[in-house]
Amino acid sequence: MDLKLETPLNELTASEIAAAVRAGRTTCEAVVRACLDRIAAREPEVQAFSAIDPDRALTAARAFDAKGNRGPLAGVPIGVKDIIDTEDLPTEWGTPIHRGRHARRDAACVALSRRAGAVVLGKTVTTEFANLHPGKTRNPHDLARTPGGSSSGSAAAVADFMLPIALGTQTTGSTIRPASFCGVFGYRPTYGEHRLHGVMEASGSVDTLGIVARSIADIALYRDVLLGIEPQPLGLIERPPSIAFCRTHNWDLVEPAAQARVEGAAQRLAAGASVVDVALPADFAHLNEAHRWITSFEFARTFAWEIDHHWNDISETLRQGRLADGMSCSFERYVEMQEFAAQCREQVEWIWEDFDIILAPAAIGEAPLGMPAFAGAPLYMMWTLLHLPTITLPVLKGDNGMPIGIQLLAGRRRERELFAHADRAYRQLANGEQ
Amino acid sequence: MDLKLETPLNELTASEIAAAVRAGRTTCEAVVRACLDRIAAREPEVQAFSAIDPDRALTAARAFDAKGNRGPLAGVPIGVKDIIDTEDLPTEWGTPIHRGRHARRDAACVALSRRAGAVVLGKTVTTEFANLHPGKTRNPHDLARTPGGSSSGSAAAVADFMLPIALGTQTTGSTIRPASFCGVFGYRPTYGEHRLHGVMEASGSVDTLGIVARSIADIALYRDVLLGIEPQPLGLIERPPSIAFCRTHNWDLVEPAAQARVEGAAQRLAAGASVVDVALPADFAHLNEAHRWITSFEFARTFAWEIDHHWNDISETLRQGRLADGMSCSFERYVEMQEFAAQCREQVEWIWEDFDIILAPAAIGEAPLGMPAFAGAPLYMMWTLLHLPTITLPVLKGDNGMPIGIQLLAGRRRERELFAHADRAYRQLANGEQ
Repeated sequence: MDLKLETPLNELTASEIAAAVRAGRTTCEAVVRACLDRIAAREPEVQAFSAIDPDRALTAARAFDAKGNRGPLAGVPIGVKDIIDTEDLPTEWGTPIHRGRHARRDAACVALSRRAGAVVLGKTVTTEFANLHPGKTRNPHDLARTPGGSSSGSAAAVADFMLPIALGTQTTGSTIRPASFCGVFGYRPTYGEHRLHGVMEASGSVDTLGIVARSIADIALYRDVLLGIEPQPLGLIERPPSIAFCRTHNWDLVEPAAQARVEGAAQRLAAGASVVDVALPADFAHLNEAHRWITSFEFARTFAWEIDHHWNDISETLRQGRLADGMSCSFERYVEMQEFAAQCREQVEWIWEDFDIILAPAAIGEAPLGMPAFAGAPLYMMWTLLHLPTITLPVLKGDNGMPIGIQLLAGRRRERELFAHADRAYRQLANGEQ
Repeated sequence: MDLKLETPLNELTASEIAAAVRAGRTTCEAVVRACLDRIAAREPEVQAFSAIDPDRALTAARAFDAKGNRGPLAGVPIGVKDIIDTEDLPTEWGTPIHRGRHARRDAACVALSRRAGAVVLGKTVTTEFANLHPGKTRNPHDLARTPGGSSSGSAAAVADFMLPIALGTQTTGSTIRPASFCGVFGYRPTYGEHRLHGVMEASGSVDTLGIVARSIADIALYRDVLLGIEPQPLGLIERPPSIAFCRTHNWDLVEPAAQARVEGAAQRLAAGASVVDVALPADFAHLNEAHRWITSFEFARTFAWEIDHHWNDISETLRQGRLADGMSCSFERYVEMQEFAAQCREQVEWIWEDFDIILAPAAIGEAPLGMPAFAGAPLYMMWTLLHLPTITLPVLKGDNGMPIGIQLLAGRRRERELFAHADRAYRQLANGEQ
């Protein structure tokens, strides 16, 4: 991969930065400076960071340059969602309750990132406890609009060229939603794929890491880094893929203009692939309810300490929403919902007998005005509860010129196929009309 | 339940203490004092605690007595394994690397315990990172012998009447083994059952909490507390149960004297039940290998920070054992093992069509001399990877008079049946000869 010399360093992808740093064509320090300059210019408006220490980042960059220039993420600045522990910056979970909280070690995913050559540039804003109550971040494409949540700062910073790549998490749609609203790639792994040591638990049955980036190659690369394995190049799809177009039971929640764009994308993909409208089994409509009760039941136990000691510092949104749900949910209902979800996970396997990937909406439409960080939650609940890996591609634009993503999903643990299909689909869609 | 007035307070079960405190027949302070007296007398030899603060515990006890005497664990002193966060005592994971580590909040399981009326008496010794390298604890029945690991201090403290009940965890056999070696009840829940927020992750695919207690009723009670639900009384088994006696592929690892005792227990149970020798499918023999690679792969990622920053402070045992395994294991092998384990989890379901519970050995025999805290790991690996709930009953004694447990296992999420069957089996076996 050649460095595009005309491209400002802060606009390069992570893969491009790492290649340039390894080849000695730039330094980590130069890249970090470029990102810090962009942040200095834009952060007052975008407010993507909950904590940032430019001097410390530059010191780390110089230390990296001094000791060599190796690693799959050589010299790459990363952003880390504020629910993921770092030894050098506070991790406050988006709540005043944990203001000043400072872990003494890196989360597993952060340590693996640094091992690969990455430099932590800052902590990115999360909604309160990665739940609904919004943080301060604004959408870089239109400051009057939400960036989406809960990985708000990660998506906004990557979209705004403050960082090439950032860590998020997902319990409902916390990576896919903000990536779609901010016009970047977002990836939610197969459930269970990565170690979550040092990552705030929300709902252990569905929590995963998430990655936000400006290229599919970056997502594939970073996913392998986070697995602690040798990165593999993106695969190629040799034959025309078979795509299941699932509007899902929540199609009516998608705005008409966005519906038309998603259907347009499906039609364009059909030029080089088989695209078939597929309806999920009728009872899958209940998966959203199952997600609601499972995550609420778990959330209300996960945060038992905060509930008992800091009830008044929890937002009304959270107290009257997920916590009220969780405290009212019986164990019998919780178990019933878990068993239903497990059945659906088995049942969805039939789809991979006929199809390579699923195409589905990634958002209700453009990022809404104001700060409803969690717009469109039902679009994500089912997929997250099914534990399927998913990626959103920034290929559509709405009537206001704001980005809209589309989701591609694959079978559990089939991320390599997912990325290869996503790469093919993206090339096809990005070249067409928006 | 009547308080046995002749029984010293530190020898009561958790259920007995809670009933007495609620009825005003004793106070939390009196119970805590009795436990502290026992600890003062015995701790120099047993060394069950990694951290204890008697004044703080007494203050908490008096505060509890002052504000009322309610809760399912009203006034019950608990021990908390040193990999579980507490806001008032350090949590050091059994390693010098994290000496002085002090969380600012309680783990979810600790907060739920306190909400139910429990008072944290101290942190109990774990092996290094809840892995093989032993802590300082000794078996209270014979100080020359291991208490078993990794929940060494929890089992020893409960067995020695320092505490009625304690929290442990299990990734291999870390609750069942020390409970068997120390002669107390130990319970490993269905995988996924409890929130692990604030509990050190080891291998996320198999980690669970664990409970060590001196009665089955206490385990059933505490399990519900940890789920954050209203405790249910122990159920009754109306008809003679159907028991699958699984010697398992690892039967040869069980010492001949212990084999004879376990077989004797099976025979005695057959007096009131159907007990049938059942061989597991042949390929289940590979589950131990799967457990080894899955947990090692994950462990080596979970502790990426410690590996990169404190390699020399990690024991040789861990570096040359699980970490070396984990670093040599390919991702392809890891995934293959995960898929095999998932298949076996489905396959084992057939057993519940014919049987209510499984009876299996809980240890290789008596606790060995010296400190091989992890003796008999293969006996636990398969069951843990199958995600089945299990309880060990302290019903046998070896040639040296040391305790030996037997394991009962049930289908996933069928803990209520498991406890009811365990209660019945225990009554039958405890009344017979040892």
